[in-house]
Amino acid sequence: MREADLSGQTTRSAADGLEESTLLSPKFDGDGLITCVTTDASSGEVLMVAHMNAAALQKTVATREAWYFSRSRRSLWRKGEKSGHVQHVVSMHIDCDQDAVWLRVEQKGAGACHTGRRSCFYRKVPLGSWPVSLEFSQSERAFDPKAVYGEK
Amino acid sequence: MREADLSGQTTRSAADGLEESTLLSPKFDGDGLITCVTTDASSGEVLMVAHMNAAALQKTVATREAWYFSRSRRSLWRKGEKSGHVQHVVSMHIDCDQDAVWLRVEQKGAGACHTGRRSCFYRKVPLGSWPVSLEFSQSERAFDPKAVYGEK
Repeated sequence: MREADLSGQTTRSAADGLEESTLLSPKFDGDGLITCVTTDASSGEVLMVAHMNAAALQKTVATREAWYFSRSRRSLWRKGEKSGHVQHVVSMHIDCDQDAVWLRVEQKGAGACHTGRRSCFYRKVPLGSWPVSLEFSQSERAFDPKAVYGEK
Repeated sequence: MREADLSGQTTRSAADGLEESTLLSPKFDGDGLITCVTTDASSGEVLMVAHMNAAALQKTVATREAWYFSRSRRSLWRKGEKSGHVQHVVSMHIDCDQDAVWLRVEQKGAGACHTGRRSCFYRKVPLGSWPVSLEFSQSERAFDPKAVYGEK
């Protein structure tokens, strides 16, 4: 069972009525991941949506720093390990069916997005008609991704 | 191609440099879904995390009401169709790699969660130690789910 990776936690099989339980028993998907939404603790802005495996979840809880699992690199990932743009976790919530967590963070450095913006959600989808053309809501970059991550 | 389901939109194959493009070209997963984070437009609280297929995305944009795709029921789902707790969409953003959207909504009625809470994220994960026991941050129900959805 994947839940057994959460060392020290009771496994899902022991859980009844999970929605009303105090038992942490994340519903990992077929790849062993749950979704994580990360918002700015001050502004409420959604900074990013990423994924966590059991190790990332446990490290985030224990260290109060945001850890994720990179699906493209297939590896555990401490947010800001390269850029220095770490995230201090102010609070963490889990949803009713325990397949998503919500982090409220203090974003250190210039931004959360690898493109150089503060948030990954820098483009607006206009409403009320179809088809649509996206609008940049944060066209200014908060940092230069080439300087931070190097040339690609 | 799944993107072709977005009638009237140019397909992903035509997109270069998608992160800096105004082209809407969602990166649907193997089930044809993208992740949707929905926050309260006033408070910034995360109300729910759900999924959208191409039809749900298009209907949400066109009608300014939140539509999702229910993975458990395998069907398109207008939020609040049964409970009356609909969501008026104030703004919609899409992230850098276009596999997640963010809705800011006015939540009508008592709440977004089928358990009777305003938000699905009604339990806190305490930080700093491991293992953990969840803490209810919204123990009071905003509505009675049995009265709204019927007995299960």
